Amino acid sequence: MDDSSRFDLAVIGSGPAGQKGAIAAAKLEKKVALVDREEMIGGVSLHSGTIPSKTVREAILYLTGFRQRSFYGQRYTLKENISISDLAFRVQTVKEREKAVVEDQLRRNGITIFHGLARFLDPHRLEVQGEGEPQVLAADHVLIACGTRPARGEGIPFDGKNIMVADQLSGVETLPKDLIIVGAGVIGLEFTSMFTTLGIKVTLIEQRPTILDFVDQEIVEALMVHMRRQGTTFRLGETMTSVAVEEDGRVHAHLESGKRVVAAGLLYAVGRQTNADTLDLRAAGLEADARGRIAVNEHFQTTVPHIYAAGDVIGFPALASTSMEQGRLASCHMFGRPTPHREIMPYGIYTIPEISMVGRTERELTQAQVPYETGIAKYEELARGQIAGDRSGLLKILFHPDNLQILGVHVIGDNAAEIVHIGQSVLALGGTVEYFRDAVFNYPTYAEAYKVAALDGLNKLS
Amino acid sequence: MDDSSRFDLAVIGSGPAGQKGAIAAAKLEKKVALVDREEMIGGVSLHSGTIPSKTVREAILYLTGFRQRSFYGQRYTLKENISISDLAFRVQTVKEREKAVVEDQLRRNGITIFHGLARFLDPHRLEVQGEGEPQVLAADHVLIACGTRPARGEGIPFDGKNIMVADQLSGVETLPKDLIIVGAGVIGLEFTSMFTTLGIKVTLIEQRPTILDFVDQEIVEALMVHMRRQGTTFRLGETMTSVAVEEDGRVHAHLESGKRVVAAGLLYAVGRQTNADTLDLRAAGLEADARGRIAVNEHFQTTVPHIYAAGDVIGFPALASTSMEQGRLASCHMFGRPTPHREIMPYGIYTIPEISMVGRTERELTQAQVPYETGIAKYEELARGQIAGDRSGLLKILFHPDNLQILGVHVIGDNAAEIVHIGQSVLALGGTVEYFRDAVFNYPTYAEAYKVAALDGLNKLS
Repeated sequence: MDDSSRFDLAVIGSGPAGQKGAIAAAKLEKKVALVDREEMIGGVSLHSGTIPSKTVREAILYLTGFRQRSFYGQRYTLKENISISDLAFRVQTVKEREKAVVEDQLRRNGITIFHGLARFLDPHRLEVQGEGEPQVLAADHVLIACGTRPARGEGIPFDGKNIMVADQLSGVETLPKDLIIVGAGVIGLEFTSMFTTLGIKVTLIEQRPTILDFVDQEIVEALMVHMRRQGTTFRLGETMTSVAVEEDGRVHAHLESGKRVVAAGLLYAVGRQTNADTLDLRAAGLEADARGRIAVNEHFQTTVPHIYAAGDVIGFPALASTSMEQGRLASCHMFGRPTPHREIMPYGIYTIPEISMVGRTERELTQAQVPYETGIAKYEELARGQIAGDRSGLLKILFHPDNLQILGVHVIGDNAAEIVHIGQSVLALGGTVEYFRDAVFNYPTYAEAYKVAALDGLNKLS
Repeated sequence: MDDSSRFDLAVIGSGPAGQKGAIAAAKLEKKVALVDREEMIGGVSLHSGTIPSKTVREAILYLTGFRQRSFYGQRYTLKENISISDLAFRVQTVKEREKAVVEDQLRRNGITIFHGLARFLDPHRLEVQGEGEPQVLAADHVLIACGTRPARGEGIPFDGKNIMVADQLSGVETLPKDLIIVGAGVIGLEFTSMFTTLGIKVTLIEQRPTILDFVDQEIVEALMVHMRRQGTTFRLGETMTSVAVEEDGRVHAHLESGKRVVAAGLLYAVGRQTNADTLDLRAAGLEADARGRIAVNEHFQTTVPHIYAAGDVIGFPALASTSMEQGRLASCHMFGRPTPHREIMPYGIYTIPEISMVGRTERELTQAQVPYETGIAKYEELARGQIAGDRSGLLKILFHPDNLQILGVHVIGDNAAEIVHIGQSVLALGGTVEYFRDAVFNYPTYAEAYKVAALDGLNKLS
């Protein structure tokens, strides 16, 4: 094996975790290899996950006139008949541009890219199967960031036409009138939001009795109220026992409770399966759980100390933003440059309306016996909310009643994923709710919600 | 005079400064009177300034498909022929809702509203001329927040049809093909942006050789490049000597340099005149300058110590956001509750694309001999920018090369006025550029620009 095949770090997968892990190591002047299939550079995030779905979401919000409806009326849409091609129009452009950005970044950082699928030969060697002869790499460290694919429920007759997983959606030619979505996790909820905004009736089936348990309860309720108004039927605490396309050409789903749900199509969005099964983990001395997840410690180190894992392959929260951070932290740790763990992780959920949060929820604080007060601003109280016609938006600040420190910020509504970062920085830098009362905010903005909420909260104290 | 006419504070004007001044005093349990004409509750901000113009701006961005053009093509518009009524449609709704919010807030805080025009009888007494008999109020303190109206240049034949000031725009029935705008201050630039986005050619005439001198030069240049591309002709350092509607029915403007500019209409936006001339200031022992501005000290106190002034009547920056803060600070000071002055004032300019900034500019830092480094993120480098198709957006962080503290944040592009507040809180709380490098941002967001800019800036140091 010559020097060109020896690396300080080999990264498996080029999604958010793999990219940022590789770049962090390269910046420490390490010799880095990154392995992924050529067509998948950028990972699921870029090809079938975050990027396409957020691009389609943006197109839907625009083409349906969603943000304007409270002014121009509920029946107002820019296009009467929205086709798949209207929605897909931008996706290819955005994907290509973003892929170019990723490749350029990897190149500029001197990272060697190997096109193909990786598998372990032993704890330090990988075989890459690309188009030609297999290649072998040796590396002092390995970062597994192989990502996930949609899990396919057993006994479900997937046909990619009527009954499908998310990755098959791009093959659909016409939008159905109604749809069954199984699984009310983040992905299931995001799809439900998009489809109902398009005017499609969705029945959302979820085995658990509640949704988004890590999110503030008041925000979840606001979301559910809005989603119902848009045309979602929630079937929580229900299990699908069988499903089939019947003679009428429609999908018939049977629930354990005896109910039958019928629609033009069914989207199965119950969790995801990791791609670790393709890696020959055993050759590295590693194991995965039933869903293919790899266990790591707080440094993202597996049970084999020189092998790390990050991103969707390690499970919750499986968001692009957190995966990037995990990849970076893993590389910093393996090369002896520990960086402080950010305890303060924001979450962004791109339902319609979008949700974002940072810090703790009321439930968590109550469980931890931390007293708190709440300050709330409704978007409709803000000039910006009036201009946009956002009537369901809401920002809530949780703060300590004694020292006034920020404990959590929870937002639902337009721009939630952006403005949550204002709260995040005040939380991270130890500011108090008084900061928001005293700061000057541009007018009219959604950011002003912080000031309104702070005044509300402080008034409750006095 | 009975007790019902005696107040701790009388506020003249119900715009942002007057409202917040009145409410701050009411929260200190003071007896507060607020005087304004009934139809003007909310002030110019609500009736002909900020609120209508931002509402129309939102309608323009939407109806022209502005944010989608880089995908669907330059010729893409939602409506081929956009009429004034399309644009004005939402304004009335938003104004009514917002007026109700303001009135409700004043009422809830127990503020007595007097409908009519106020003038001083002596330093402590005001006469209010409303519909019926004049009323007389006595007050220990007075807050003058009477606002401004567009200044009308001498010798200009305003007809409200072809040659007009901003307040007359709502009377225009059809959109012109081309337009002259005189005055490239914030208001002139915002109107120019809106009109050119609608496809109207605008010639913008400004006496000074430069625009927006308080804004970072790089941001101003980005704005000018974008505005030119949209159809603006800048005529800076030019003085209009005469203007008239000629026989061809078009407006002919003559410039000192010998140039002639011809267009369907002319909008005069050179500064504003305050309404202080209606107040009989001399009876209170006060004076105003040539433009009607009232001088105040750092506590917003006039030369008559119990009389304060805030908002547009005191001059720059004359933004709703800063006026609110001034009103609040004035009331806190007069009742012995001094609050710390926020040195950190954000500015939001709603040109297209919008501009926002906080902290100092490169020019100011250079003059003050403070060394700095810059970190820049282009929106097109961000996934969010790709999704929105924003190709001119830019975020710049200025920070100290030794202690890494944030010195200024300058943004141009979609959501600038919102995300500037992330930088503002880090600046205010003494955070460093490393905060942005290490923080986790939702993906895909514009907020991520902070991380990209921080990495760029820190790389320049090493």
